[in-house]
Amino acid sequence: MTATASNPSPTGLDLQQAAKDHLWMHFTRMSAYEDAPVPIIARGEGCYLEDINGKRYLDALAGLFAVQIGYSHGEEIGAAVAAQMQELPYYTNWSYAHPRAIELAKEIADLAPGDLNRVFFTNSGSEAVESAWKLARQFHTANGERRWKAIGRDVAYHGATMGALSINGVAPIRTPFEPLVPQVGHVRNTNRFRRPEGETEEQFTQFLLDDLEHRILSEGPETVAMVIMEPVQNSGGAFTPPAGYFQGVRALCDEHGILLCADEVITAFGRIDGWFASEHYDIKPDLITMAKGMSSAYASIGAVVASDRVAEPFLHGAESFMHGLTFGGHPVQTAIALKNIEIMKRERVVEGVAERTAAFRQTLSQLLELPIAGDLRGTGFFFALELVKDNETNATFTDDEAEKLLRGFLSERLYDAGIICRADDRGDPVVQISPPLVAGQAEFDEIAGILGEVLGEASRLVGH
Amino acid sequence: MTATASNPSPTGLDLQQAAKDHLWMHFTRMSAYEDAPVPIIARGEGCYLEDINGKRYLDALAGLFAVQIGYSHGEEIGAAVAAQMQELPYYTNWSYAHPRAIELAKEIADLAPGDLNRVFFTNSGSEAVESAWKLARQFHTANGERRWKAIGRDVAYHGATMGALSINGVAPIRTPFEPLVPQVGHVRNTNRFRRPEGETEEQFTQFLLDDLEHRILSEGPETVAMVIMEPVQNSGGAFTPPAGYFQGVRALCDEHGILLCADEVITAFGRIDGWFASEHYDIKPDLITMAKGMSSAYASIGAVVASDRVAEPFLHGAESFMHGLTFGGHPVQTAIALKNIEIMKRERVVEGVAERTAAFRQTLSQLLELPIAGDLRGTGFFFALELVKDNETNATFTDDEAEKLLRGFLSERLYDAGIICRADDRGDPVVQISPPLVAGQAEFDEIAGILGEVLGEASRLVGH
Repeated sequence: MTATASNPSPTGLDLQQAAKDHLWMHFTRMSAYEDAPVPIIARGEGCYLEDINGKRYLDALAGLFAVQIGYSHGEEIGAAVAAQMQELPYYTNWSYAHPRAIELAKEIADLAPGDLNRVFFTNSGSEAVESAWKLARQFHTANGERRWKAIGRDVAYHGATMGALSINGVAPIRTPFEPLVPQVGHVRNTNRFRRPEGETEEQFTQFLLDDLEHRILSEGPETVAMVIMEPVQNSGGAFTPPAGYFQGVRALCDEHGILLCADEVITAFGRIDGWFASEHYDIKPDLITMAKGMSSAYASIGAVVASDRVAEPFLHGAESFMHGLTFGGHPVQTAIALKNIEIMKRERVVEGVAERTAAFRQTLSQLLELPIAGDLRGTGFFFALELVKDNETNATFTDDEAEKLLRGFLSERLYDAGIICRADDRGDPVVQISPPLVAGQAEFDEIAGILGEVLGEASRLVGH
Repeated sequence: MTATASNPSPTGLDLQQAAKDHLWMHFTRMSAYEDAPVPIIARGEGCYLEDINGKRYLDALAGLFAVQIGYSHGEEIGAAVAAQMQELPYYTNWSYAHPRAIELAKEIADLAPGDLNRVFFTNSGSEAVESAWKLARQFHTANGERRWKAIGRDVAYHGATMGALSINGVAPIRTPFEPLVPQVGHVRNTNRFRRPEGETEEQFTQFLLDDLEHRILSEGPETVAMVIMEPVQNSGGAFTPPAGYFQGVRALCDEHGILLCADEVITAFGRIDGWFASEHYDIKPDLITMAKGMSSAYASIGAVVASDRVAEPFLHGAESFMHGLTFGGHPVQTAIALKNIEIMKRERVVEGVAERTAAFRQTLSQLLELPIAGDLRGTGFFFALELVKDNETNATFTDDEAEKLLRGFLSERLYDAGIICRADDRGDPVVQISPPLVAGQAEFDEIAGILGEVLGEASRLVGH
């Protein structure tokens, strides 16, 4: 087959066939495309994507919680890349620096809260989490302690490389690959849906902190290197923290000499509020991991930023962080991230989230009228709608029912209806809604409209 | 301080101070810059780099064994990026495809030997190795076996994320972070320097295969998921395989149902010979990992390519590879890799290595006249010179002597002399020489000239 108008491969390649023959898609059941075409996305504009057949989709997931500025800044960022490519297309941060990596390190240190001042660059969020755990282990060794364990939370996702994977609280994506890196304890997350009736927020916070303290004590506090938590947990569906929670977590870490890492791969760069959600919730972490929004995903770049206290042992004598990545701090990737941040500042993207989040929530809350809609959670531009059998009882689906509903119906039907969001069953079934941060009321209405229609069908499908 | 002519930061930032305050350099003893300036590389051209003070360096390490096409193709590749950025600046491979990822998957499948046809994209070499090990584990599970172990080689480097790190045979970079992923066995590598006098190549091969077989049997063959080896091992200094070695490794893997992964993060894309060294040595691997040369490091991209046999269980039914990376198969990164391969074909870069490797070796072999030069190893554009106390006895240095020689003298002196290559002590001390693949006789002569001068000083320093 040769290229047609609907086939934008300048090589004349049959993209469908080549995708089926050669591309190993990520987290994808490839048998789904034995008799159906692979969805091929070819163009982006604003909050919209277009496939190779010219069909448009509202991207209500911002790629994967990442494309803060939307898809229309390619011209400006492409020009920055072209300039950087001519100046210095690559160099390493192993023993050397170069201007863009330095500028971006300074920029991130300026944006990050408190004395989080020292930036180690990676190529992904997974690598950022790996780097944080390695750094925590070596930090304690430098201080004369041997601590190696991490504590994460139930159902939390932290990445796919083996270290980051070990931290995941999503058992079905972790256990097929065990044994992994020892030892990780998992504690309760901040999901308040279905907590006992009458429990106050204060009681819920205390319940969670008791669980964390119990886990620290049962692991042996002197063996725990790091507690790692997302400010708002994505997997399971946008679990926000109750009041006082992160203050209590910080206090427990301080009491037991444990480093606190805020995994902000999703929440940083405006997704929640401000440049880092750690500031919004006053978390005061020792480490922050970041990636996606840092470049609006126009680059493959992540980082971990460390506090002065964490960096200190590595600045003197023969001590050095025994860690590095060939592409870490890549001149082109850092140039892209710098330009993204410049655009976000100029277009007031972070401020826009604060201005429009109430309207976004208000629009989405119309969906709660559907019998299948149990709970709307989240903040900023980061929401999840939990699906239930019936929102009178809030009974959840069996695994088999969830599989049929999410994979058998919703994923495909939403895509057909022209919207990309995620029907996720890593915890209880949720629809995740996390559009580019430049989305406005028109996009909110379209999201709520299409979701209302498709979830209405789903309601009828499950017997309403 | 404001920007000066020697300070190319358009922001007016004091780059030196900002680097010292905010940039966490990789594998770097940062105390070295307490009283000395951080080396800041600002521009690249051909095989040369230039720092912010305008001083030029011959890059005899191709970045980090990566910049195959040199630094002068930024204009052409930048134009390809600018076009891609306007079309589609980002999208994910999680359930979706897009044209550049498909085209690159096809291109890699075409270039890779045998039926290595299915490509999973990553953001780095470390992530490629992680993906290979995860895939090997899940492949065996899909076939009804539970195998999780890996076997690597002494002193071999395979990456810095915790899974890849576990495989490393370089103890000093692995042990500070243990416990890591269980369980990895390490076998002898193909370093033939200092083997017993009179041992034939055939005997050496048999010695190595006996060691591997012993290790497989002692681990319990039914527990071993993967054997992973570089065709030519970098760490320790360009260890080439003896005749018959990889045929024997393949036979042992077949006998015991183990997947063989060729880690070609360094050796692929022309560094040794041909697009993949697996073809040169007729390795017939089940998996090949790649990264650096795939884009000449102009992008942050890697991949693992799997044989039809490995992919087969994942193409049908409910089975899916439970693995994914947000930036995997990034449209811009894949566009860069495609353009790099196009340039390499057009400029006959791979063929040029075959044409010039003999001359390169010949030029470097002049260095063997220095008393400090013990052994010149390698092939293609990938050489290492092992340093010894005296090449009459080939006695090696103590750790303390190597530290003084490499870190205390050579690294700084080579940089001052205007050459970038790597004085490495992960095994016995070597100088690694691995220039861009576009280097010619003029660069060979310059490399040999500067190295001759500096290593002559080093010879005198150690008492000659």
